[in-house]
Amino acid sequence: MKRNKKIVTETLSGFTELLPAEQIVFNTMLDTIRRVYENFGFVPIDTPVLERADVLLAKAGGETEKQIYQFKKGDTDLAMRFDLTIPLARYVAEHYNELTFPFRRYAIGKVYRGEKPQAGRFREFYQCDIDVIGDTNLDLRFDAEIPSIIYMIFRELGFAKFTVRINNRKLFNGLFFELGVTESSTRIMQSIDRLEKNGIAAVQKELKALDLSAKAIERIFDFIELKGSSKDIIAGLRNLGIANAQFKEGIEELSEVIELIQQFGVPKSNCVIDLTIARGLDYYTGTVYETRLDEYPEIGSVCSGGRYENLASQYIDKKLPGVGISIGLTRLFDQLCKKGAIKIGSATPTKILIIPMMDDLGPSLKLATDLRKNGIPTEVAFGKEKAKKHLGYADKLNIPFVVFIGETEVEKGIYTLKNMQAGKQEEFSHKELLFKLRHHRE
Amino acid sequence: MKRNKKIVTETLSGFTELLPAEQIVFNTMLDTIRRVYENFGFVPIDTPVLERADVLLAKAGGETEKQIYQFKKGDTDLAMRFDLTIPLARYVAEHYNELTFPFRRYAIGKVYRGEKPQAGRFREFYQCDIDVIGDTNLDLRFDAEIPSIIYMIFRELGFAKFTVRINNRKLFNGLFFELGVTESSTRIMQSIDRLEKNGIAAVQKELKALDLSAKAIERIFDFIELKGSSKDIIAGLRNLGIANAQFKEGIEELSEVIELIQQFGVPKSNCVIDLTIARGLDYYTGTVYETRLDEYPEIGSVCSGGRYENLASQYIDKKLPGVGISIGLTRLFDQLCKKGAIKIGSATPTKILIIPMMDDLGPSLKLATDLRKNGIPTEVAFGKEKAKKHLGYADKLNIPFVVFIGETEVEKGIYTLKNMQAGKQEEFSHKELLFKLRHHRE
Repeated sequence: MKRNKKIVTETLSGFTELLPAEQIVFNTMLDTIRRVYENFGFVPIDTPVLERADVLLAKAGGETEKQIYQFKKGDTDLAMRFDLTIPLARYVAEHYNELTFPFRRYAIGKVYRGEKPQAGRFREFYQCDIDVIGDTNLDLRFDAEIPSIIYMIFRELGFAKFTVRINNRKLFNGLFFELGVTESSTRIMQSIDRLEKNGIAAVQKELKALDLSAKAIERIFDFIELKGSSKDIIAGLRNLGIANAQFKEGIEELSEVIELIQQFGVPKSNCVIDLTIARGLDYYTGTVYETRLDEYPEIGSVCSGGRYENLASQYIDKKLPGVGISIGLTRLFDQLCKKGAIKIGSATPTKILIIPMMDDLGPSLKLATDLRKNGIPTEVAFGKEKAKKHLGYADKLNIPFVVFIGETEVEKGIYTLKNMQAGKQEEFSHKELLFKLRHHRE
Repeated sequence: MKRNKKIVTETLSGFTELLPAEQIVFNTMLDTIRRVYENFGFVPIDTPVLERADVLLAKAGGETEKQIYQFKKGDTDLAMRFDLTIPLARYVAEHYNELTFPFRRYAIGKVYRGEKPQAGRFREFYQCDIDVIGDTNLDLRFDAEIPSIIYMIFRELGFAKFTVRINNRKLFNGLFFELGVTESSTRIMQSIDRLEKNGIAAVQKELKALDLSAKAIERIFDFIELKGSSKDIIAGLRNLGIANAQFKEGIEELSEVIELIQQFGVPKSNCVIDLTIARGLDYYTGTVYETRLDEYPEIGSVCSGGRYENLASQYIDKKLPGVGISIGLTRLFDQLCKKGAIKIGSATPTKILIIPMMDDLGPSLKLATDLRKNGIPTEVAFGKEKAKKHLGYADKLNIPFVVFIGETEVEKGIYTLKNMQAGKQEEFSHKELLFKLRHHRE
């Protein structure tokens, strides 16, 4: 939009803001995620968006560091957080003596990455994270709980078809050790992460370029191509004949986790072993997760995470193993909108607009107060415009009900409620009106 | 805390983070404010924390500008928002054609001001704002609605005694015009804003220093010292004999607003006229509000705002009058904590901890799923430690109930529920247990 002499009002490239009707749906999704996290006993924490640069960069390297919004204010090097995990690590180190372990925390907030702008990438976006942090140890059962949380969230978000894919990094580590390719392990895993996107031939080419022998590549593919039921895959893994202790540990962990998951009430169709899931970050050391929406596979993983050995070694001399996941809600919402998979409704929380038809506002205001006390979002049309204009306002915002308050209504104690969608009118007493609207809300 | 070779984990000066039990109370307050805003039909918007510097600085001057976190990324001058009003103005200008007016919006989010660190001042803090924006016009009735929203919020936050103080800037403007001191009006108002803090003598001295005549100062004090009931004050204002049209308009507006407020169900004791409230920002042009907690007057205003003529003239050629308020929740919470006025409870949302007493986790997990489906936040103690350790965990976090699931419980279908606070145990069937816990939650 161009305007004479006026300042450009568009948001910066990579930054997004929603119109009210979209924002309401977005907030409902955020609230759902938060409610499920709390239902599983996760505790909220809220750390600063700005931190000392050395705190946030303690573990960051290469690409991440380039993306960080970093600047000086006075003598202090500052940076904006680029995830919620590093701030969690700092928080746990700082408050170690005041926390109770296992520490189950959730964090929902904006993070910042100055990436090159491209479709579906944001420079400011919401992450919705949970992590369980143990002091010295953390039982494997916590790894099995995570998919049940993902399951509950995506069910409550209204998705019927989605799949949590599970793997264990110890399998990769053991296999790579067995094949003598541990030095390239990060790059091999990153290549495998792109398998679905790039195809088998491309990955084989990439592995060759990493100087892997034909035999090693063959054995990697023997591994990642194991398919079938969880039982089949576990059996297949045992049959690969890899003697490495870490590999064997990986099999046992994966087998235990996948068995426990059933007991959490997660249907088999919603949670499978997928040996191609690598999550190519150095960070993870055991179970890893990805989640796909079956109807929108091209969105990629909508909820990922895994188990790590030690959360906060850069800040504290304690061994703090953990397991966690993250949902990038800004990107998910954006993608779902573009696919028409989000139903946008009202542009207001208001359930009823009261239109006063008399100078004395008293009766209208009294009704509004009663409705609000009953938890029914209510507006009063204060402008002195004609009723038609107020009806137009209700219509534009998709307010479901309108009620006119004139002298007749006040005398008789009967209200005429207009259902905006159905276009029909019905008469109610004060009590009936409250009941009707409370009921409609549910 | 000092640790060898480890990075300092304290937050930056002026930045705050809460421990879980405090965070839960803070979030409850935030949720309450949000719920009331939505009950009054306000629509959420969520604008970026980072904006182009020229957008945020379009209206800022002197002190504000110095406080802003501003930096370059590539060729772009960026700034972090220092309030939620400027972003609202930009948002309304950008989306003018897609919005419906009057536009009632709420925004809850963090803002940034690099102020000199001092007690009770934060560099990162939450603001909880509402504004109603009209297109060309906005009825005075919206000014009267605002105190009823403040009233509902502080009631729901659990405060019995608080006072919304109202004034109208047209009174000051008219009076200053009459006295020929309009050039000093901002500084006079800022001096009057400090009246309660600094006392009468100090303000008189400050006004003298602004070259005001003894007569002018006397008439200003005749004005601001009008006391009594709203009726008394309105009568007093009329008796001052000030002929200025704007002053008269101010009387009529103030009189109408204070009369309407009663009809909104706000008790007279919670809302009074206070002619010393100036809100010394150039921004406001009509009704102004401040809110004090009667038991903690030293906290100062906990919710302030007012009416303005034109929200977004720097961005768009439309006249957009508005009225709004802001609650600085970070500061309010901090002050209340320091006064011991905040009751800190559980360090977790969890209502019940299930302790499995058998290898098969199935029955424990099934119960957990059932409880969660009933909206009861539930945890399962996964660690293989002894029961005593799990009880200690429940105790530390203030989890209200614990239930042990062993073979006897599964066989009999009877659960022993331990009330952690009362220390007593009771037996329940599965159904009774759900009922008991659902009930406890309310």
